[in-house]
Amino acid sequence: MTDISPIQIVEVGPRDGFQSVAPFIPTARKIDIIERLYTSGIRRIEVTSFVSAAALPQLADAADVLAAAAALPGLDPHVLVPTARHAQSALEAGARHLAFVLSVSEWHNRSNVRRSPEESVDEYARLLQILPADAKLRLNVATAFDCPTLGTMNDADVLALLDKLVAVTPQAEIALCDTTGRANPRQVSRLFDAAIERFPDVAGWAFHGHDTYGLGSANALAAYHAGVSVFDASCAGLGGCPFAPGATGNVATEDLVWMFEAMGVSTDIDVAKLVSVAQDIVELPGAQTGGRVRDALTAKTRCEVAA
Amino acid sequence: MTDISPIQIVEVGPRDGFQSVAPFIPTARKIDIIERLYTSGIRRIEVTSFVSAAALPQLADAADVLAAAAALPGLDPHVLVPTARHAQSALEAGARHLAFVLSVSEWHNRSNVRRSPEESVDEYARLLQILPADAKLRLNVATAFDCPTLGTMNDADVLALLDKLVAVTPQAEIALCDTTGRANPRQVSRLFDAAIERFPDVAGWAFHGHDTYGLGSANALAAYHAGVSVFDASCAGLGGCPFAPGATGNVATEDLVWMFEAMGVSTDIDVAKLVSVAQDIVELPGAQTGGRVRDALTAKTRCEVAA
Repeated sequence: MTDISPIQIVEVGPRDGFQSVAPFIPTARKIDIIERLYTSGIRRIEVTSFVSAAALPQLADAADVLAAAAALPGLDPHVLVPTARHAQSALEAGARHLAFVLSVSEWHNRSNVRRSPEESVDEYARLLQILPADAKLRLNVATAFDCPTLGTMNDADVLALLDKLVAVTPQAEIALCDTTGRANPRQVSRLFDAAIERFPDVAGWAFHGHDTYGLGSANALAAYHAGVSVFDASCAGLGGCPFAPGATGNVATEDLVWMFEAMGVSTDIDVAKLVSVAQDIVELPGAQTGGRVRDALTAKTRCEVAA
Repeated sequence: MTDISPIQIVEVGPRDGFQSVAPFIPTARKIDIIERLYTSGIRRIEVTSFVSAAALPQLADAADVLAAAAALPGLDPHVLVPTARHAQSALEAGARHLAFVLSVSEWHNRSNVRRSPEESVDEYARLLQILPADAKLRLNVATAFDCPTLGTMNDADVLALLDKLVAVTPQAEIALCDTTGRANPRQVSRLFDAAIERFPDVAGWAFHGHDTYGLGSANALAAYHAGVSVFDASCAGLGGCPFAPGATGNVATEDLVWMFEAMGVSTDIDVAKLVSVAQDIVELPGAQTGGRVRDALTAKTRCEVAA
């Protein structure tokens, strides 16, 4: 199937996953997991976030984690930043790929960053002014499909917010994020179709999906068919769902890699090595994990050992 | 979204699920679960199988379960039969919708029914000769995508077997079954596209999917886009995976209902009632279950209660 374009995975476990774990994960263990994810073939990792250490003590070691990740040849480490001020800190620590996040839902944006979405657009413009020429930019549009409080988002509202953001710069990769896992494949197709048509100059499109309602793979498939080639995922599904405690959150990286590779779509990632990392991640104290492929492949190993 | 055709769910938990549970489930409890599935809106249920009670003691109460299911107004109870002789027993017990099963994989068919696939085609022809005019027929083609031992099946071999089966009669609904969960969306699309084009006279097409590798919903979506409108699923994902102990098996009915309803595709099933049944099913001693929507919705209930 050589006619099929490859996709890229952005592993978000070390940021989106770790930040949901309450007990502090020793910095050396974080770095070890990042190095093993790298060894599995992953070349884009959201490694940490520069935020207030008081608000998010788990990521207080952001500078050390970033420095270790930046030392891995060929790795593109992303750093999440919610404001221009935190972007400045990240840049000073050596970050060269910033991921800025804001939400379509006013309720969610205020909960997350204490600003209206419009104020976050202004913040994004300020961030852009301090971005060095050699730095890359990812824009994460949270609650692009559904808000935990407000429910389904209107495509028109998402597109109107994107109008403002793309006007600031089309030179960012834009991720539409299913924050709650309640997006459905039809909605994912429809929104990406509309966005890709409306903003032809955008650098690239990504999908950030959750598996809370079992649609992690199906929604990624819909995004792929709409032309998306970059997918966020978290090894072992680490992260849970803050809006549905006990349920799963981020789609598991190994599940997406399994699906795409089975379809003949290259990811350049070794799923067996990835599952080996996932088995370690589920052992982290306080980890809420998900995914299917880990169980399927480790059960297979158990059978083979027993046979 | 009134332009979207509805789909039908065939609930297979009372056969495919129950048969994987070792401790005998009391007949009254089986019937209670079937009645509650019916109350959720499900109108097609594979309620049991007529097989050797020595081989499958869990289903030794097939006649009693069938009689109770047949008393529910508007319910279409399917009964699985592997041979014409067992079909005769099922018909004598009042069955009017038989599901005949055979495998594309010779290894799997011999393991399952101790025959070659060609011998099962002959058996299917014998079954057809005794089928009353008022009875319906479902044909389940197992390992249509992948065999636990032989790996990926060739589309050409599946189509060649279908040639023989459709020659016996095109008047059956044919389910292509992903027995191991290792089918991928591209393969599902490709095989259904080819089969539907090659056999235009077949009464209908169904997809029987597993979620072992997280692709239960994605594969169902691919089948739906290929024109399939009937989907097998097991409430709570009951059934596990005999080829990967500890992993999930059948795709959970509530996950498929959630996906299709969210897409605006009517199933006529109440997902909240279905989740309530699923919560009972996971309590069955020896049950191996899966699915995501059950956890997501019950977690939501817990949050609301806590708030």
